[in-house]
Amino acid sequence: MNCDFSKLSPAELTVVRRELEERYAEFQSRKLKLNMARGKPGAEQLDISDAILESANPGFAADGTDCRNYGCLEGLPEMRQFFGDVLGIDPNNIIVGGNSSLNLMYDAMTRLMVFGTQGNTPWGKLPKVKFLCPSPGYDRHFAVTEEFGIEMITIPMTDHGPDMDMVESLVSSDDSIKGIWCVPMYSNPEGVVYSDETVSRLGAMKCAAPDFRIFWDNAYGVHHLYEPIVQRDIFAECAKAGNPDRVLYFFSTSKITYPGAGVSMVSSSAANCAEILKHMTIQTIGHDKLNQLRTLQFLKDAAGLRKQMEKQASLLRPKFELVLKTLEQELGGTGLAQWKTPRGGYFVALDTLDGCAKETVRLAKEAGVTMTGAGATFPYKNDPRDRNIRIAPTFPPLEELAIAMELFCVCVKLAALRKIMA
Amino acid sequence: MNCDFSKLSPAELTVVRRELEERYAEFQSRKLKLNMARGKPGAEQLDISDAILESANPGFAADGTDCRNYGCLEGLPEMRQFFGDVLGIDPNNIIVGGNSSLNLMYDAMTRLMVFGTQGNTPWGKLPKVKFLCPSPGYDRHFAVTEEFGIEMITIPMTDHGPDMDMVESLVSSDDSIKGIWCVPMYSNPEGVVYSDETVSRLGAMKCAAPDFRIFWDNAYGVHHLYEPIVQRDIFAECAKAGNPDRVLYFFSTSKITYPGAGVSMVSSSAANCAEILKHMTIQTIGHDKLNQLRTLQFLKDAAGLRKQMEKQASLLRPKFELVLKTLEQELGGTGLAQWKTPRGGYFVALDTLDGCAKETVRLAKEAGVTMTGAGATFPYKNDPRDRNIRIAPTFPPLEELAIAMELFCVCVKLAALRKIMA
Repeated sequence: MNCDFSKLSPAELTVVRRELEERYAEFQSRKLKLNMARGKPGAEQLDISDAILESANPGFAADGTDCRNYGCLEGLPEMRQFFGDVLGIDPNNIIVGGNSSLNLMYDAMTRLMVFGTQGNTPWGKLPKVKFLCPSPGYDRHFAVTEEFGIEMITIPMTDHGPDMDMVESLVSSDDSIKGIWCVPMYSNPEGVVYSDETVSRLGAMKCAAPDFRIFWDNAYGVHHLYEPIVQRDIFAECAKAGNPDRVLYFFSTSKITYPGAGVSMVSSSAANCAEILKHMTIQTIGHDKLNQLRTLQFLKDAAGLRKQMEKQASLLRPKFELVLKTLEQELGGTGLAQWKTPRGGYFVALDTLDGCAKETVRLAKEAGVTMTGAGATFPYKNDPRDRNIRIAPTFPPLEELAIAMELFCVCVKLAALRKIMA
Repeated sequence: MNCDFSKLSPAELTVVRRELEERYAEFQSRKLKLNMARGKPGAEQLDISDAILESANPGFAADGTDCRNYGCLEGLPEMRQFFGDVLGIDPNNIIVGGNSSLNLMYDAMTRLMVFGTQGNTPWGKLPKVKFLCPSPGYDRHFAVTEEFGIEMITIPMTDHGPDMDMVESLVSSDDSIKGIWCVPMYSNPEGVVYSDETVSRLGAMKCAAPDFRIFWDNAYGVHHLYEPIVQRDIFAECAKAGNPDRVLYFFSTSKITYPGAGVSMVSSSAANCAEILKHMTIQTIGHDKLNQLRTLQFLKDAAGLRKQMEKQASLLRPKFELVLKTLEQELGGTGLAQWKTPRGGYFVALDTLDGCAKETVRLAKEAGVTMTGAGATFPYKNDPRDRNIRIAPTFPPLEELAIAMELFCVCVKLAALRKIMA
């Protein structure tokens, strides 16, 4: 059991700080080189898909389509059906992409900027375009937004998703607010699952902009560490409220099989899908259908995917539990940090005392442990309270993760103490 | 030996026309369903790469990079080296893409429109942007240009490439002309090989626009049907003339291995490559490296590629020779059509009498043979003389091609005769 640091006397703080400085120096002397920066799967997670590397590719789709040749822009029927089954989406409203759903998001944003959507003015022709960015959030979403000069508005995250009172108030009154980034299941980085109420409110809210778009990045939609969670259907909620074109839904198998060679998809209303295909047919003759076959040959169907995700979970659970156990042991009750306990996804997020995140990450870096840059989880890399740090436990082996987490916690405490005592 | 139709008397023309109408009716009664529309390889061309489907993927690059995971945005070192060796380009100035070089071209155009290049105003912010379109040319190039609202200026093709007097005169005097499409080797659709002089003049010409760009789509750069042709180095010509950033060079293995699952690349100056990567790193975490490995495992090196292209040529030569022989037999000396004799690439282009292309394609279609739409080889699908038709002989089997070509020639003559006698 740790002591509450706010209750320690200056003399006690001095003693604790000396101990921490010693522990930190000891870590420094070890010349570590560990990385908890990016949400990359570890090698053992990739190994479970290695049948993909070894098996022969059938080359032809079920309907006889020669997958070696050009064509089939919207993706193979069986691939669209698979995604539909897994996500509960109409396969007719699914367009299969290449190996990167981020690329589909970037291209979607590009089209909105250059061409506009459903007859509305292209966003790039407007004097001002703003986007809502629930934060902490995913740095690559913010980078796409910033790339196009879109002003980002930070929306605080709650335990149920974005602060919907704030979202509703903003979108109803400002027609230059054109969209919102959402990672609805196990949000990056906190692991928050949007509540049913949040999903319904996002679908139903009145938006001043007729071309308001929800970028629904369901990156961790099947990445349960424990019992599966069924989320309310965003498409149904939008349709019910008369906003059928509001959602662009992204998903991929990157963190199901291989990040480098997965299959991505985008889904939206029939009208939006038609618009996407109208532009995509100028952009490419078709994505890699052999990789669609390869991926399906391995995952087979929705049941096969569930089995695969159980294997993934069995590899990731010990890592997440180690992270959370270490946080509790080292920081629980100290009052120096707060965190949530995700039940899926790829990250744990930690809040230090205000003004201590950058220093914590710097200390970790100097002792050989690379974390995601402090601030990265906010628009413009600017965490207004300088407190949020994303922990990505998937890539390092368990033994390395244990060392890295212990050092990290020492850094959290040391940065806090140096600040308190300054 | 055919007779020159311009020398026939009205009575003779009537006889010939009756014969043609009978031949055409006979074709119609056969209920054919043949396709010479798109430059798709035939199944036998795909079969020669089927070792790709069957062999195990090593999964790791020579430098140990785990190709299953994220990363390596610019492409694997061995893939860049391969392209460099094949094309005589510095591998450091090569960026590997996904399965589609068309997609790389589209994205390059998008960036020029939205972000501009090397500090110049984004093209989308200018009141007017124009592009030079050597024609007959590739319909998908024109579609990309039209997508962005760029005005297309048709440049006539000569036997040595685009009419360079016209090109030089235009680009030197109009700074709204921002670029030119080039298929320098075995141009689509005529099979023209740009002469050394043309390459030098393209590199050296004075452009009013400082950000003038040559979209150098070397799609058929290694697609020789007979002896290989070595073309002058466009990068060297540009550099010599002080225009190092002028060229965006595109290439892919789509028509070397599989169209649906090839590997694409773009090459340019170091400054342009840095700019491309700056945006691409926002767009994607990396393209499919396993497919790079797979492709290299099969093609091995520049010598391996040459062997592969000899196999491709041995499959395509009979088709091209059949097309050219049929044209000569049916149309040679008639004065009703003109064509070039390509020594590589994917197409043969034919010019009918003025005003007869659309009617010829319609007649062929009604008798069950689909050709590329007349006009498709010109900007806005508008062939000012309505005479150019692209013949794509690669996809149909040889026996079908023979029937389709015979019918096609009947249609050329019939359309001409109906016009002459109208």
